[in-house]
Amino acid sequence: MTLFSTYFLMDTEEIKSYVKENISFMRDATQLEATEIGDGNLNYVFRVKDMDSGKSVIIKQAGHTARISEDFKLSTDRIRIETRALQLAAERTPELVPEIYLFDEVMSCCAMEDLGDFTIMRAALMEHRIFPHFAEHISTYMAENLLPSTDVVMEHKVKKATVKNFINPELCEISEDLVFTEPYFNQNNRNIVQSENAQFVQEQLYDNKPLHLEVAKLKYLFLTKAQSLLHGDLHTGSIFITENETKVIDPEFAFYGPIGYDVGNVIANLSFSWVNGQAQQQDEFTRWIEDTIRDTIDLFGAKFKEVWKREALELFAVKSDAFMDFYLQDILSDSAGMAGLEMNRRIVGLAQVKDITELEHTKHVQAEKLCIQIANRFILERDTLQTGEDFVRVLHDLKEDFS
Amino acid sequence: MTLFSTYFLMDTEEIKSYVKENISFMRDATQLEATEIGDGNLNYVFRVKDMDSGKSVIIKQAGHTARISEDFKLSTDRIRIETRALQLAAERTPELVPEIYLFDEVMSCCAMEDLGDFTIMRAALMEHRIFPHFAEHISTYMAENLLPSTDVVMEHKVKKATVKNFINPELCEISEDLVFTEPYFNQNNRNIVQSENAQFVQEQLYDNKPLHLEVAKLKYLFLTKAQSLLHGDLHTGSIFITENETKVIDPEFAFYGPIGYDVGNVIANLSFSWVNGQAQQQDEFTRWIEDTIRDTIDLFGAKFKEVWKREALELFAVKSDAFMDFYLQDILSDSAGMAGLEMNRRIVGLAQVKDITELEHTKHVQAEKLCIQIANRFILERDTLQTGEDFVRVLHDLKEDFS
Repeated sequence: MTLFSTYFLMDTEEIKSYVKENISFMRDATQLEATEIGDGNLNYVFRVKDMDSGKSVIIKQAGHTARISEDFKLSTDRIRIETRALQLAAERTPELVPEIYLFDEVMSCCAMEDLGDFTIMRAALMEHRIFPHFAEHISTYMAENLLPSTDVVMEHKVKKATVKNFINPELCEISEDLVFTEPYFNQNNRNIVQSENAQFVQEQLYDNKPLHLEVAKLKYLFLTKAQSLLHGDLHTGSIFITENETKVIDPEFAFYGPIGYDVGNVIANLSFSWVNGQAQQQDEFTRWIEDTIRDTIDLFGAKFKEVWKREALELFAVKSDAFMDFYLQDILSDSAGMAGLEMNRRIVGLAQVKDITELEHTKHVQAEKLCIQIANRFILERDTLQTGEDFVRVLHDLKEDFS
Repeated sequence: MTLFSTYFLMDTEEIKSYVKENISFMRDATQLEATEIGDGNLNYVFRVKDMDSGKSVIIKQAGHTARISEDFKLSTDRIRIETRALQLAAERTPELVPEIYLFDEVMSCCAMEDLGDFTIMRAALMEHRIFPHFAEHISTYMAENLLPSTDVVMEHKVKKATVKNFINPELCEISEDLVFTEPYFNQNNRNIVQSENAQFVQEQLYDNKPLHLEVAKLKYLFLTKAQSLLHGDLHTGSIFITENETKVIDPEFAFYGPIGYDVGNVIANLSFSWVNGQAQQQDEFTRWIEDTIRDTIDLFGAKFKEVWKREALELFAVKSDAFMDFYLQDILSDSAGMAGLEMNRRIVGLAQVKDITELEHTKHVQAEKLCIQIANRFILERDTLQTGEDFVRVLHDLKEDFS
C-alpha cells in the first residue's frame, strides 16, 4: 500500500516521495528539490531535481478544479488526454515532443522530460529572437501527426475508437465559448477592448452580419468535423524552443476536429509576432516572421502530400490525386478561417496575448485594430488563401506605419 | 436466478418463457405462440402472441454473428444502439416509431410493439399502392428527430456524450464499404450488373474520375461530419406503413453523421419506386411519387425551420437567419449527393432492391441504366438541388419510354 493509491493534490514534499517511488532514475536520489513552476490556468507543474546527479523530471498534476479558481470545476480526465496525445505524437515525432515517463490515472498526473534549457516561444518572440528551423519543425509536427489520425490513413474502426477516447467536452467548451462565440457577441460582458477601439469593434465584430455568417460556419466545423486528432491549443505559448530544437507541449485540448484549427493557431500567433515586430520597427524580425508564415504553410502542404502518398490506405485517397488536392485546399481554407478566429479572440476576448497587450498604449491601440483587420480578411477570404504567399500578402496589404 | 441471466440465442420455446417473465401484459398468458419472422440479414425477430387475449409483442435479439453468415462476426452492441435510437425518437415522435417495452443488455434483445397490421413500405410500393400521408409523416420524422440532436439545439457537452454513445464502427463500416466504395471500384469483385450494362457501368462508375472526386467528398462527410444522430438506414424497407400511419423501424445503423444521409436515403428509394412505376406505365403512381419527393423535401425544409426557430439554443443559430438558410442549403446539397450514392449502390452493389431487380429482364436493364443516370446527376449537381421541384426535374429530364 503506497501513499499514492488514492488521489490527492500533492505538495512539494509529497511530489519528492512520488518521484522517488515512481521514476526509476530518481530512485536512489538523496538530494531532491521540488519547485512548483506552473503558470498555466489549469494544472500544477513541478520540477523535481536531484542536486547530486543533476537529473530532473517534470510532474504535471490535474486538480478537480482549475488552478486559477476553485469555482471552475474540471474533470481530471484532461491529464489522460494530454498524456495520451503526447505519447501518440512521440510515436511519429519523438524529437518534437517531451518524452513521457509515466501516466498515473489514480493520481491524475504524468511525469515527463524536463525541458529546462528551452524557452516558451511566445516569450522569445517578444524579444524578437529568430528561430531559423521553426517552420521546418512545426510543419513536420503538423504533417506527421495530423494526417495519420485521419480516415485517409487510419483504419476507420480504429479511428472511431480514437475519436471516442479523445472526446473532450469541457476543454472544447472553453474554446467554443472563448474562440467561437464571445468575441462576436460579448454576451458575458467580459471582452476587453481598448476604449479607442470600442466603436471599431462594435462595427467590425459585434454588428458585422456577413462576418457572423462565416464565423458560424467555422464554429460548426469545430463542433462537428471529426477530421483528425488535433493538438487543440497550438499557440506559441504551447511551444518550447531553443536555437536548434522545438518541442510542442500541453495538448490537453486534444480532440478530433478540423486540421485547420491547429494550422490556423500557428499562423495566428506568428501574426501577433509580426504585428509586435512592426510596432517596434524590428524589420529583420518581421521579415523572418513573414518567411516563417510562408514556409510553415508551404512546407506543411508539401510534407502533407508526402505522408499522403506514402501512407494513405483509404481507396479514394490512394487513387485520386484530385481528391488529395481538394483535401489540402480544404485544410488551408479552414486554416485561414481559424487563424482569423484565433486572432480576434486573443484581441478582444478574455485570454489576450502579451505580444499585443504589452506594447505601449498608442501602439497597443493601433495593433489591436490591425489584428482585427487581418483576422477578418483571413476569415472572409479564406477560400482564396492557398499558399504561404497568400497569407503573407494579407499582412503586406494591411501593413501600417507605427512610427 | 433466472434462465436469462447470461446470454444465449433463444429459440421459440425460450422466447415464450422470456416473454412471460419480462413483459407485464403477457405474465398470465397461457396460450402463447412464437414465430420467427425475421427477414433481415443480421438479427432474429420473433412475434409472440397470446392466442387468448390476442395481445402480441415483438422480440428482436442480436447474435454474435450475423443471421446470414456464421463467419460474419458482429458486436451485439447494435441492439443497444437500435433500442436507444428508437427510445429517443419516441420522445419526439411517438406516433412514428414502434413503442419499446424493454431493452435487455444481458440477452442483447429488446421487446417492442407488434406492428402486425402494417406492411413493409417497399413491398407496398412495388404493388403501386399510394400513401397520401407519407410525405407529411416522414418529413415530420426527419425534422423532429434530426435537428434536436445537432449542436444547433443540443447543449454541446450533452451532444458529445451522445456522439460517444452512438459510435457504431461495425455497422458504419458496412455502409462505408457497400455505399461509398465498392460501387466505384468493384475491388471485391462482388458487384452485380446486368451484362448489357457492363460497359456503361465501367464508364459511368468505375472510370469516371470527376464522379470519383465528388463521391470521395461525400464519403468523407459520412466519415467525419458528426452533425446529427441519424437513423442511418432510412430506406423503404425500414418503414412500416398503413393507409394512415407510418412507423420507422430498424435504426441499428444509427450514428452521428450528416443529416443529408437520411434525407437522401428516403429520396433515393422513392426514386426507385418512380423508375419501377415508369417501367410499368403506372402513371397515377409515378405522379404520386413525384408529389411525394417534392413534398418530402419542401415539408422537411419548412418543418426544419420551424423546429430551428422554436428550439435553437446555440447563439449564432438563434441570431442569424442567414446561417439557418446556409445550414439547410448544406443539408439539401448533402441529401442530393447521398441520394445518388444510395441509388448507385443499390443498382450495382451487393444489396440490390427488388423494385428494380424484379422487373422483367429488358425493363430491368433499362431501369438499371436510368437509375445510374439519375444517381450521377444527383451527385454531380447536388449544390443546385435546393427544392423538391429541383429533385423532380432531374427525374423528368431523364424520363424514358419503357414501352
